[in-house]
Amino acid sequence: MNKYNGSVKITLRKGILDVQGKTVEHALNSIELYMISNVRIGKYVELTVEADTPEIAHSIVTEACKKLIANPIIEDFEIIII
Amino acid sequence: MNKYNGSVKITLRKGILDVQGKTVEHALNSIELYMISNVRIGKYVELTVEADTPEIAHSIVTEACKKLIANPIIEDFEIIII
Repeated sequence: MNKYNGSVKITLRKGILDVQGKTVEHALNSIELYMISNVRIGKYVELTVEADTPEIAHSIVTEACKKLIANPIIEDFEIIII
Repeated sequence: MNKYNGSVKITLRKGILDVQGKTVEHALNSIELYMISNVRIGKYVELTVEADTPEIAHSIVTEACKKLIANPIIEDFEIIII
């Protein structure tokens, strides 16, 4: 068994209203950072996986994302295994 | 003025207890995904910046992170400008 480091970027799907992002954007405007727009806030997960190969590690993390870490109905996720 | 896409990975600093990560780890164990450990949960922010150069865009996003998006006392952030 090897240990792999994995990271997962979880973003809201296009077309899903990002209330938290809009709030941050308004707050940035109120402190005069007008140059920033289209703020979208997602999650970034770091983890360690024990598996025989990077491919198996990737499939374990995919399962974890689908079942628990992400909400596949409204979120997309991208996994990187190192 | 050019438009740049930026992304920011925000992670809890080492040594800061990640309660959310621990909870997810226990939940993964309860659905028999024992191979995953050291779960740490951060934020992933995507945004658009208007600036003359990528360097200026980077410094605007750094300011936004320090003032509002991240909490520099307990969080580290990494900015990528494309």
